[in-house]
Amino acid sequence: MVLETVLLSLVVIYLASKVGGELVNKLGLPPVLGELLGGVVIGNSVLHLLVLQDSGVDNAQSLIISLMEITSDLSKSDASLVANAQSEVISVLSELGVIILLFEIGLESNFQDLLAIGIPATLVAVTGVTVPLVVGSWGLIALFHISTIPAVFTSAAMTATSIGITSKILSELGFLNSVEGKIILGASVIDDVLGIIVLTVVASLTRDGEIDFARVAYLIISASSFILGAIIFGNLLNKLFVAIADRLKTRGEIVIPAFIFAFLMAYIASIIHLETILGAFAAGLVLEETDKRKELQRLVTPIADMLVPIFFVTIGAKTSLGVLNPAIPSNQAGLAMAIFLIVVAIIGKVVTGLVVFNPELNRLAIGVGMIPRGEVGLVFVNIGTANGVLSQPLEASIILMVIITTFLASPLLRLAFSVGQNPTVPDAATTYLTVQRERGTGNGEQ
Amino acid sequence: MVLETVLLSLVVIYLASKVGGELVNKLGLPPVLGELLGGVVIGNSVLHLLVLQDSGVDNAQSLIISLMEITSDLSKSDASLVANAQSEVISVLSELGVIILLFEIGLESNFQDLLAIGIPATLVAVTGVTVPLVVGSWGLIALFHISTIPAVFTSAAMTATSIGITSKILSELGFLNSVEGKIILGASVIDDVLGIIVLTVVASLTRDGEIDFARVAYLIISASSFILGAIIFGNLLNKLFVAIADRLKTRGEIVIPAFIFAFLMAYIASIIHLETILGAFAAGLVLEETDKRKELQRLVTPIADMLVPIFFVTIGAKTSLGVLNPAIPSNQAGLAMAIFLIVVAIIGKVVTGLVVFNPELNRLAIGVGMIPRGEVGLVFVNIGTANGVLSQPLEASIILMVIITTFLASPLLRLAFSVGQNPTVPDAATTYLTVQRERGTGNGEQ
Repeated sequence: MVLETVLLSLVVIYLASKVGGELVNKLGLPPVLGELLGGVVIGNSVLHLLVLQDSGVDNAQSLIISLMEITSDLSKSDASLVANAQSEVISVLSELGVIILLFEIGLESNFQDLLAIGIPATLVAVTGVTVPLVVGSWGLIALFHISTIPAVFTSAAMTATSIGITSKILSELGFLNSVEGKIILGASVIDDVLGIIVLTVVASLTRDGEIDFARVAYLIISASSFILGAIIFGNLLNKLFVAIADRLKTRGEIVIPAFIFAFLMAYIASIIHLETILGAFAAGLVLEETDKRKELQRLVTPIADMLVPIFFVTIGAKTSLGVLNPAIPSNQAGLAMAIFLIVVAIIGKVVTGLVVFNPELNRLAIGVGMIPRGEVGLVFVNIGTANGVLSQPLEASIILMVIITTFLASPLLRLAFSVGQNPTVPDAATTYLTVQRERGTGNGEQ
Repeated sequence: MVLETVLLSLVVIYLASKVGGELVNKLGLPPVLGELLGGVVIGNSVLHLLVLQDSGVDNAQSLIISLMEITSDLSKSDASLVANAQSEVISVLSELGVIILLFEIGLESNFQDLLAIGIPATLVAVTGVTVPLVVGSWGLIALFHISTIPAVFTSAAMTATSIGITSKILSELGFLNSVEGKIILGASVIDDVLGIIVLTVVASLTRDGEIDFARVAYLIISASSFILGAIIFGNLLNKLFVAIADRLKTRGEIVIPAFIFAFLMAYIASIIHLETILGAFAAGLVLEETDKRKELQRLVTPIADMLVPIFFVTIGAKTSLGVLNPAIPSNQAGLAMAIFLIVVAIIGKVVTGLVVFNPELNRLAIGVGMIPRGEVGLVFVNIGTANGVLSQPLEASIILMVIITTFLASPLLRLAFSVGQNPTVPDAATTYLTVQRERGTGNGEQ
């Protein structure tokens, strides 16, 4: 009966993700937003079709379970058992989805490309991580009297720009290959890494409940060493991977070794108290360096298409957006907090343009291009809710922040390019990148 | 902690599947056999790395759970909870694997091609289903005093030739395009359908515990109508599918609608008391008729590569081959039964060649080509164990039957072609097929 319930849940999740994704896509917005909203509609906030365990609502009362009782002779007494098993399976599928997502992002992040625009991108990334983290934490503690750990955790959720969303907006506007576009993309890859490291540190603090600076140092060092180690030993690991994949003669000769590596890295990351997604991301980075990259990306795409929407839809489904309903007076504090987060999230990234020194570039556009948050912010919500560190208003505020920053990014970026300088033309961009590359590693492969 | 345990289990499962698959492939045997044997090695029979719930061994004692206790601070008291959640998740993943497998088989089965060699293939298929079912049931009841339902269930597991294994052997021997090869393949598709219908009927009987002929009639009619209905309405459904897929602009535009359809068909099949895999198979058959077929097959391949090995490895892992250990005297009855099943499985398919009337064909080779059992037989084991209808010796006997028939098929087929007539040459084959096709539907697409 569990299998049938999972099948029905997947049908509902896929319908929500596709209807939501396609509708917002028609409006010129990124599909991930629609998947999230699709989840909000079928979940705790609206329809109660998909209700998962520990989301504050009785999962045996969900419409999917009721439908199972009607169609499949599921007895009332078994309903709760089946509902819990369904929750468990859907949760693991959704976490496999985010692991595959980070593996895929790693697989698309080229280190050499990053080094080429390394200096401005790093400055933008570090500024864009620091400002929201510091200002957000300060505001939540001083203005809203949130305790330190949830405040830091919530602000950390604002650190990472969404690579997927920002690259999609840039490509739709035709600015993907401008220098501004390259810097935005490079910075969003770097702040993803920083964001995941911040997440690892903060999430581990929430488990212990107090801030121990020795522990913070340990985590920062271990997370950085883990990523650096993956890069340094990467050359050995990816040669090993290619050698193995070349020898295998049976089906799955690329996908299965790649997943063995990714899942093992995720597991090892968890053993040393880092996040599983950090391991998957590092695995993707390592395998990006091989000549199987293209083939592997092609193979991972349909797997990601199958699993990643489960992650976004369940995140949406678990949220109770009702806690921010402005019609209810007791929600005012939560709503004020959400507005504060949104303002910090926007300003905290717009200022990053200031640290780009090249006056020929449209610095406002660079800052604005960093605004959209997405996957990593939602990963924070997922972990924060699982750890019990995020109250319902904080959780809903982060989700609202992700939704609003994503909504605003496309029109604001168009505005920034129209009021300021035009994006630096591809020719100049090529020269710029070439110069940087010659200074850098000299690897010109795109 | 459940996620980490699942990740570790997947790493172990993938290692077992690849090591097993590659080793047997080196010996010229089909990889699926190696995945099964890999599962036997890591499971209940040997290493106890992967132990699943309801397999007769305490799953909290598995090596994977012990490893989690060592590496991830999993406490003894939580071990059993985590082990049960891991079992639940891995079981659902493995069942999703077999659903995808049957969807993929459906997607590769072309109705028009089957109609072209329809008459001899149908005769071979019907004979090859009837003889093992009748002789096996009779023998198990009369000689081994097994009660009717387990006897019929076990014999039903011998009905379906493995499309995957037999097509691989034929292609390795270079006989895939001979008339004999076409008939073998056509017959194995047809006996898969018949086998799944038999499975549906028998599995439903095992749930009720008694044979009610009205119910048998209902199930045969509903299963046949389900498949026929899918084919008849298939033309509408696949037009709808193409229209939807063509309109979608966001990622997963083919895979997600296809899975919504496949999972919905699987769910509907389960509602009307058929097997979920029958629904997935029918969905594959319907989508095979669209011009998205090639693209969909390409996209489903890596997903199948990821999920299908989980099915074969867990089947192997759940088996206790020790119950057939000849060194233990009490196992003699079980062992005799296993030998009986193997003999019936071989003879029951070899005789199918006799019903092919064309004297120019190598009829022995056709019969021998039908010998290997695989996926569908293992699906029977899975369902029979879940329903509690198969005793451990019966379960182990079926698995041994699958292993031995697969081992023997390749050398026996080579022998059959060398002692009898050469396979009918491609030219003659083309003529033969063309004639049949003109009589049939006239659809010449390959």
